[in-house]
Amino acid sequence: MTEYRIEHDTMGEVRVPVDALYRAQTQRAVENFPISGKGLESRHIAALARIKKAAALANKDLGTLDGEIADAIAWAADQVVTGEYDAQFPVDTYQTGSGTSSNMNMNEVLSTLATEKLGREVHPNDHVNASQSSNDVFPTSVHVAVTEALITDLVPALDHLAKSFERKADEWKSVVKSGRTHLMDATPVTLGQEFGGYARQMRLGIERVEAALPRVAEVPQGGTAVGTGINTPKGFPQKVIANLVAETGLPLTEAVDHFEAQANRDGLVEASGALRTIAVSLTKINNDLRWMGSGPNTGLGEIHIPDLQPGSSIMPGKVNPVIPEATLMVCARVIGNDATVAWAGASGSFELNVAIPVMGTALLESIRLLANASRVLADKTVDGLQANVERVTALAGMSPSIVTPLNKLIGYEAAAKIAKHSVAKGITVREAVIDLGYVERGELTEEQLDEKLDLLSMTHAG
Amino acid sequence: MTEYRIEHDTMGEVRVPVDALYRAQTQRAVENFPISGKGLESRHIAALARIKKAAALANKDLGTLDGEIADAIAWAADQVVTGEYDAQFPVDTYQTGSGTSSNMNMNEVLSTLATEKLGREVHPNDHVNASQSSNDVFPTSVHVAVTEALITDLVPALDHLAKSFERKADEWKSVVKSGRTHLMDATPVTLGQEFGGYARQMRLGIERVEAALPRVAEVPQGGTAVGTGINTPKGFPQKVIANLVAETGLPLTEAVDHFEAQANRDGLVEASGALRTIAVSLTKINNDLRWMGSGPNTGLGEIHIPDLQPGSSIMPGKVNPVIPEATLMVCARVIGNDATVAWAGASGSFELNVAIPVMGTALLESIRLLANASRVLADKTVDGLQANVERVTALAGMSPSIVTPLNKLIGYEAAAKIAKHSVAKGITVREAVIDLGYVERGELTEEQLDEKLDLLSMTHAG
Amino acid sequence: MTEYRIEHDTMGEVRVPVDALYRAQTQRAVENFPISGKGLESRHIAALARIKKAAALANKDLGTLDGEIADAIAWAADQVVTGEYDAQFPVDTYQTGSGTSSNMNMNEVLSTLATEKLGREVHPNDHVNASQSSNDVFPTSVHVAVTEALITDLVPALDHLAKSFERKADEWKSVVKSGRTHLMDATPVTLGQEFGGYARQMRLGIERVEAALPRVAEVPQGGTAVGTGINTPKGFPQKVIANLVAETGLPLTEAVDHFEAQANRDGLVEASGALRTIAVSLTKINNDLRWMGSGPNTGLGEIHIPDLQPGSSIMPGKVNPVIPEATLMVCARVIGNDATVAWAGASGSFELNVAIPVMGTALLESIRLLANASRVLADKTVDGLQANVERVTALAGMSPSIVTPLNKLIGYEAAAKIAKHSVAKGITVREAVIDLGYVERGELTEEQLDEKLDLLSMTHAG
Amino acid sequence: MTEYRIEHDTMGEVRVPVDALYRAQTQRAVENFPISGKGLESRHIAALARIKKAAALANKDLGTLDGEIADAIAWAADQVVTGEYDAQFPVDTYQTGSGTSSNMNMNEVLSTLATEKLGREVHPNDHVNASQSSNDVFPTSVHVAVTEALITDLVPALDHLAKSFERKADEWKSVVKSGRTHLMDATPVTLGQEFGGYARQMRLGIERVEAALPRVAEVPQGGTAVGTGINTPKGFPQKVIANLVAETGLPLTEAVDHFEAQANRDGLVEASGALRTIAVSLTKINNDLRWMGSGPNTGLGEIHIPDLQPGSSIMPGKVNPVIPEATLMVCARVIGNDATVAWAGASGSFELNVAIPVMGTALLESIRLLANASRVLADKTVDGLQANVERVTALAGMSPSIVTPLNKLIGYEAAAKIAKHSVAKGITVREAVIDLGYVERGELTEEQLDEKLDLLSMTHAG
Repeated sequence: MTEYRIEHDTMGEVRVPVDALYRAQTQRAVENFPISGKGLESRHIAALARIKKAAALANKDLGTLDGEIADAIAWAADQVVTGEYDAQFPVDTYQTGSGTSSNMNMNEVLSTLATEKLGREVHPNDHVNASQSSNDVFPTSVHVAVTEALITDLVPALDHLAKSFERKADEWKSVVKSGRTHLMDATPVTLGQEFGGYARQMRLGIERVEAALPRVAEVPQGGTAVGTGINTPKGFPQKVIANLVAETGLPLTEAVDHFEAQANRDGLVEASGALRTIAVSLTKINNDLRWMGSGPNTGLGEIHIPDLQPGSSIMPGKVNPVIPEATLMVCARVIGNDATVAWAGASGSFELNVAIPVMGTALLESIRLLANASRVLADKTVDGLQANVERVTALAGMSPSIVTPLNKLIGYEAAAKIAKHSVAKGITVREAVIDLGYVERGELTEEQLDEKLDLLSMTHAG
Repeated sequence: MTEYRIEHDTMGEVRVPVDALYRAQTQRAVENFPISGKGLESRHIAALARIKKAAALANKDLGTLDGEIADAIAWAADQVVTGEYDAQFPVDTYQTGSGTSSNMNMNEVLSTLATEKLGREVHPNDHVNASQSSNDVFPTSVHVAVTEALITDLVPALDHLAKSFERKADEWKSVVKSGRTHLMDATPVTLGQEFGGYARQMRLGIERVEAALPRVAEVPQGGTAVGTGINTPKGFPQKVIANLVAETGLPLTEAVDHFEAQANRDGLVEASGALRTIAVSLTKINNDLRWMGSGPNTGLGEIHIPDLQPGSSIMPGKVNPVIPEATLMVCARVIGNDATVAWAGASGSFELNVAIPVMGTALLESIRLLANASRVLADKTVDGLQANVERVTALAGMSPSIVTPLNKLIGYEAAAKIAKHSVAKGITVREAVIDLGYVERGELTEEQLDEKLDLLSMTHAG
Repeated sequence: MTEYRIEHDTMGEVRVPVDALYRAQTQRAVENFPISGKGLESRHIAALARIKKAAALANKDLGTLDGEIADAIAWAADQVVTGEYDAQFPVDTYQTGSGTSSNMNMNEVLSTLATEKLGREVHPNDHVNASQSSNDVFPTSVHVAVTEALITDLVPALDHLAKSFERKADEWKSVVKSGRTHLMDATPVTLGQEFGGYARQMRLGIERVEAALPRVAEVPQGGTAVGTGINTPKGFPQKVIANLVAETGLPLTEAVDHFEAQANRDGLVEASGALRTIAVSLTKINNDLRWMGSGPNTGLGEIHIPDLQPGSSIMPGKVNPVIPEATLMVCARVIGNDATVAWAGASGSFELNVAIPVMGTALLESIRLLANASRVLADKTVDGLQANVERVTALAGMSPSIVTPLNKLIGYEAAAKIAKHSVAKGITVREAVIDLGYVERGELTEEQLDEKLDLLSMTHAG
Repeated sequence: MTEYRIEHDTMGEVRVPVDALYRAQTQRAVENFPISGKGLESRHIAALARIKKAAALANKDLGTLDGEIADAIAWAADQVVTGEYDAQFPVDTYQTGSGTSSNMNMNEVLSTLATEKLGREVHPNDHVNASQSSNDVFPTSVHVAVTEALITDLVPALDHLAKSFERKADEWKSVVKSGRTHLMDATPVTLGQEFGGYARQMRLGIERVEAALPRVAEVPQGGTAVGTGINTPKGFPQKVIANLVAETGLPLTEAVDHFEAQANRDGLVEASGALRTIAVSLTKINNDLRWMGSGPNTGLGEIHIPDLQPGSSIMPGKVNPVIPEATLMVCARVIGNDATVAWAGASGSFELNVAIPVMGTALLESIRLLANASRVLADKTVDGLQANVERVTALAGMSPSIVTPLNKLIGYEAAAKIAKHSVAKGITVREAVIDLGYVERGELTEEQLDEKLDLLSMTHAG
């Protein structure tokens, strides 16, 4: 049996679990939103707490808050940042679109902790929320958490995966394989060139995140209710953001225009587009990996993907490319989260977007999934890939497109006849050239054939 | 310190937590997929267990499983269905795309429970998984869980919300209000007509779910590895599905074509499209509600949305339409989940789609969110709506479009002049008619004006 | 040099090209919306004209329009339906969201044609638009055009493609091939079973269209400005829709609730979801076709896709699966159009959705693309597919998963050892069984092996 | 009756319309792809021609093409760039996914024109396509056309719209209006601040385009068939791109990694994400404009949107916000195109993405629509907006949230009581303060009230 105490807010009295650090408004929200059963991520709670600390200290400096009270709030925020009190934040993601309930949840928890610490009343609104509004605090908390997640989690994970691909690119730089365009036999590449391309995609993914970052790291803090900064002292946004930068080490900046910054979450939509592009990259890469590893006997069989677990409950001995599949599902989720973010991002009116919590949840999930999948992919699959070099090389020589270098000697149309002849007869291109009399007629020499049909030399220009 | 025991599978030995009911393959999956930290929903686990029970009993009937073993498996499945053992299913959603790891997790847990119960070895593959493959079991489990969630949760919740709208439609059937098209003043409707429209949208939502249901309730069970039904006795699919129907009461049917049914999850994509349409309906409705309730002093102010919680941490006394906002965020999420489902649905190759777990997760989340939001919206917002009748009626009379019935007497162009005159002068349409001399000139009588400009009579044809 | 005449509307005078059949409001729209350069499709124009005819005759019957005028309008509409006057409809898709400009364009053109025919003034609003509003006419025109396109174009095209697949399913019913799950070698299927699955997907696509159709064919006509039916005589909706049904043969019905039907385009969102599901089906099928046809020498090489055109400007002799690729791009477009339709569908307010033209354009494009691609795919690719039977059969025998039937004799774990042994040694499963001593030890007889390892018998149950 | 001549290619003979400048491969493509009836945009054709010129001149410099032939090709390309020969490019967008048919169409047309000019055979493959492949030419042509469209069309159009908003921001910098958050009355802003926010959104849109541009302007030219640059002379990519830069003035660069650049179109996916974000911005802005202009009598009525055309075929005198609606439909289309681009972008395999033409079409359409809509919105709507200053100011004073500055004097809870009292009694906040005895009790002075309740001072901090 839960025991309750009575709390009040401007609407009246509310029964709150006796041990809760939160108060009336949090409890109302818990009762109002029994929707998903899940609230803010731990990282998001910490970001919110950090803003409260930064604001308290800015208020202290600017004389808008008693120093002892400010210090007590800062101390309380530090406790919350540790994650120890995460269970005190029970408000659902699907709440008021401004995140006011989560902001008040934080105000109430910090108020309780700070009051206990200080031994006198620290008020959730008048003190903890001083010079702030949910309308600047909550979106700022999303931007801070997303900025941190991008810089701390995603970029290093993409770099980790890029390095894994780069090692393979180096390892396989001389393994010639058949190129494939339209899935059809093309001129040769090296396996290393393919993996170099994957590495470059990951490096470009990092560039994409970094290109979007300035507009994610630009925060609305200081605009309070509607962007005007009502009820803030002069200099407040600069000071609170400086405090946040000092505390987090993140490249946060003040919004250039607080009306734009508060009414819109376009920066998050843009960032989600970058994540979506990374998901598109990973989709292509993982499909390639799965196909190269297909078989063992009826597929392409060019590489061997590490055996991680039995693949079938009915087909004995079967092993599947499970990490690429998991990563592909992550990509599908990121694509969906991106649609959620765009839809939510377009739903603002006048001075406020009111679909912020779901944008935060979706973005933080996308970042976490991409970061985790990238690391798992590198560690459990890419690092352990083995090339079936013999087969890869044999296939490279079987592509009729290796006739291509002859274009310049005999023209495209004659070369086409050779390619078709080789396929029809089931012979090599070299054999087809000879079979069709080019050497006999002196149109091509065996030396020219040796030079032109050298596979490795087809893998670069000149 | 976790203690471990040694388990083995066809790949060798694995350390498993000593108290775990699961075995080697589950443990491998736990280690392979540290991605989202979240696995199958409880309802999905139960569906999987029910399939195992149905299969065990079908195997018993058809002589492909020892009767005592079959009964022990059925008993074990019943235990799992209760939810008591949900913690024994730690495999991440982002796993192998066939859900093999979750199927093996179920096979292992049931094997352990059944072995204990029976006192002799019940093998995860040879017994629990007899006549089955992950490739038919796992997608079937998604279809069963989704079918159940649609029928048990979503349809009743939509009906609940429709009834709530219908009560308001009845209550307000004579409250005349200004219609709005393009957001501009139009001819009058009743507030009841608007809410009747919302109710109809919800009823159509139910029709949409029901129209999609036959293809969700059609399950691949019996196709085993690739749709051929290899390693099943004749009659197995019919018997296992009959058992499932008996157990669940759901309208499940056997796939008409097991190759289509196993290689594709198109039925889930279609169902997701129905959920997406419901999200579109709810988006429109909740935007209407928010705008009708806007104000109290500077908005439309036509209805009062129940006060559920203080709306602002800085603006005292402010109250916001928090449930409509939460519902709109749910809709944004459903839209995103739908994109995930379509993307995943298109990713199959040959005999199997390999993005099934994320499809299941996304769909079950969408259903849960829509069902919960619909109930909360009905109970906490729609039921408590109050019309500001005086204001609503006054606004209705102020729309210049109430000139419309005069078209038939004086023509569209003359009527347009009257409407513009009324707006320019800030007078009523009736006053404008008189001001422009129509009555004086005998073109219209005061009686005609009384009849034609009656607002309520404009709210129906004839 | 274009010559102009002066026309007027309720806003004043407008210069209109001297030969134009349209008048002032169309001209204003032409000038207001220089956005995409493209207006309604011919089929959509015809649907609009048919509604005008149906309305004119209903007005005549109900006494709300002079019979001669009504007949002249009906005659004029018949002329427009032929497509002869399509150039007289220059209004851009990106216009007012109600389609009022296109409705007035039609009213003006019919007014001009009818006036000429009759020899006395037929007024665009007072006569051609009598008992109508853009708000019921224009969405009805979209639903009529979409209903017709679905029934006349898409369903027959899907049936055509299904038949093409069915012929191949029959032709190849005994061609055993390796199944593939997770892209890895699985137990065998027949090539015919795969194509039967594709046929079933197309048949299900038809079911999906038909399941959505009732809510597409339900039209708002009769609600006029805001759903109330203001300015219509009693019985008008029933009569106009009966006329439309008689004229078109389409299963159109009157909206059950005119407020829902006018304010929302949910039925179009739902229908788009069905088209999207068909695109998902076609994506999977075409990817399968491309992979089966990959090669000729380094891919799967199981089927030969008809040679339609040289595939490369540089690689001589290369031929690519161009129709599957074109179809896949069609699918990508349909997916995008579906996102447009959902976004637009959610954007309504109160009595009207104001993004109707783009919904119509997107849906009609999706239907046209899917119908055309389905026919081209059937005629130019599927019908001409040839199986490389020898290779297909050889590959089937090479899959280590053909060990699966031995599970029931020796258990899953022993079978797994055999499969792995066969792959490691590069020998057949049968050879691996013998090599591991099962026959020697008497655990399996050669007869059992012959029976259990028969490939064709693995392609069905029992 | 079309007359035909016989052309041939490596597959044999083809009947081509006698006057066509194109040849066999184009004709095959025309017959193979009767799908959408629409091919490449004029701008895209020009980009393709420019690449051919740049390549011809690079080949000349590097000795891989006879100088006269190269010059003739360059001359021919110049003719095509003018748009005069656009009708000679009849190949459908839905063609082979590499765009090979369009590349060959260009090769054939230039071949014909150059042959005529030069008086000796210029071969489509051996000369016009020398050192090139569709696989580098065609994606490069999309990147060039998109880069040009972004720089030449979109950025200036966004700047044009931003300036329009900036003029309004300046004009209305002192017009106080009620802020709205959650659509509910909030503390005041100026109308100028709102329009300043819109301007900033457009400026950020430009930043977004520019942030994505480096990866759009990075082109694969030089990689030929598979990225290796087979059949190109050393230095070719550098030279051809330098020629292109000189010709177009665009900031094009060579791909850092030709394997990444040829196999993926991620840069286009990223750019589409930027366009999508701009669409999200415009959606919010246009919804605000529509709501501010709603009425004239039953809506917010804060601004007057220019009257451009009669708004209703039935409701006389009605005028609607038609340009914002058209723009919102453009946004819906851009959102859909973005989904198409992402879907297509993920569909590559190994050395080539094969959904390039639809990506090009979708992106170029999005850019065109956004650019045109932005200009129309600025010129026909924003520039002509008029504020209903009297009403705007009156509403600002009616918001109960103007109590907010009293928080610091009497605390949040007391202020909430005042706000609620004012709403309940229908009196101003100032009257409520006095009514509740704050002045009488000496807790607040009239001077404090005058200062704190000054609306304009609430629109900035400090």
